[in-house]
Amino acid sequence: MMEAMQVHELIRNRRSTRAYSEKPLPAEALQALFEAARWAPSAMNEQPWRFVYADKEQQPEAYQAMLASLAEGNRIWAQHAPVLLLTVAKMNFGDTENAYAHAWHDVGLATGNLLAQATELGLYVHLMGGFSAAKAIESLHLPAGYQPVLMATIGYLGDIEQLPDNLKAREVAPRIRKPLSEVVYAGSWGNNAFTIEGKTNEQ
Amino acid sequence: MMEAMQVHELIRNRRSTRAYSEKPLPAEALQALFEAARWAPSAMNEQPWRFVYADKEQQPEAYQAMLASLAEGNRIWAQHAPVLLLTVAKMNFGDTENAYAHAWHDVGLATGNLLAQATELGLYVHLMGGFSAAKAIESLHLPAGYQPVLMATIGYLGDIEQLPDNLKAREVAPRIRKPLSEVVYAGSWGNNAFTIEGKTNEQ
Repeated sequence: MMEAMQVHELIRNRRSTRAYSEKPLPAEALQALFEAARWAPSAMNEQPWRFVYADKEQQPEAYQAMLASLAEGNRIWAQHAPVLLLTVAKMNFGDTENAYAHAWHDVGLATGNLLAQATELGLYVHLMGGFSAAKAIESLHLPAGYQPVLMATIGYLGDIEQLPDNLKAREVAPRIRKPLSEVVYAGSWGNNAFTIEGKTNEQ
Repeated sequence: MMEAMQVHELIRNRRSTRAYSEKPLPAEALQALFEAARWAPSAMNEQPWRFVYADKEQQPEAYQAMLASLAEGNRIWAQHAPVLLLTVAKMNFGDTENAYAHAWHDVGLATGNLLAQATELGLYVHLMGGFSAAKAIESLHLPAGYQPVLMATIGYLGDIEQLPDNLKAREVAPRIRKPLSEVVYAGSWGNNAFTIEGKTNEQ
C-alpha cells in the first residue's frame, strides 16, 4: 500500500497569519525574499513580476498610503506588520503591445518563491486581494501597462492574544484543503488519480 | 556593507530542462508534487487549481493526446518525459458566476509549490505556454468554467548529449534574470530599493 510522502517543510509550515510582531525586518531578509522571487520561471524569460514595498520605518508615508488602500478588515491587523508589499504584473511582452497572457500567473510563480523563502527565514507573509487597486496605482505611481495583483504583509509572528476574538479563532483553526481527488485527474477530467489521499486538514 | 543572503536551494537549483530520462515516475513522487501544490494559499481558500496529468505508461492514450496538443518545438524534447501535465484554472468562485480574478495567479502559486517539491525530489519540471488550449480542452474533456493555463513535462534529468545542438546550447547556458533594481521598488515606482545587487546570472 502506497504511503503519502511528506511535503517539504517550507510548504508545510507556511501560514497566512494575522498576528504580527512589530519587530522590523532586516534589509538582508527583505532582499532575500525578492532574490527568491526573481528566480522563478516565466514565458520567454520575460519576468513580468514587479514588487513595490514600504517598510514602516524606512518609507513611513508610503506605508501609510499602502495601508489606506487596504480593505478595512485587513487594516485592523495589517497595520502591525513592519512591511507592506504590492505585487505587480507587467501586461505586455518587452516594449511591444503583445499581451502577456500569463502575466498574473507568473507573478504567482514568483510570489510562490517569495513565500517559500519567507518561511525559510521565519517570516510570515499574508497575501490579500482586499485592497483598492486604484488607490495603489495612484499612491505608488504605477505606470500604464502594469496591474496591481495582490497586496501582502511581511513580518515576524506576534502574539495571537492581541488579536480580536474572531481573528484569534482563525489563527488557531486548522488549514483545510480539498482532497486530491477533487483537484488532480489522470488522463481525463474526473478520473481520480490517487487511491491514498493526503490529509485534508492539519489537525 | 550588506551581503546578499543565499536563496534557498529548492529555488536556486530549479531548472527548466529539456533533457529528460525515460525513467518512470514513482506514483508516490507524483502524488507528493500535487500534495505540495494544494497547500498553496488562495483567495477565500477557493483553491482554483486543477491538474490533469498523463503518465506515459499508465495513461498512454492520454499521454499521446497531450503530446499532440504541444507546439512542435516542444514535442521534440517533451516526448521523452515520463509525465505530461496540464494546469487548469477554475474561473468562478464556488458554484457562483462570480469571476475569480486571481484564478490564474493562484494556479501560479500552487504550481510554484509543485516546482519546489519537484526540486526536493530530484525531479525536473518544464512549464510550457506553447500548446493548443482547444486541443487540450477537447482531449482531456475540460468542462465549462475551467481554463487551461500551462502544460508541463515532469521527469528525471537525462543525457544532454541526446538533444539537438541548438537545444543542447540552451541547457548549458546560465540562467539569467533582471537585476533587483529593475523589479523591486521601495515606497514608489522607480525608487530603487537595494544598493547591493544579487547575481544576474549563474556563471
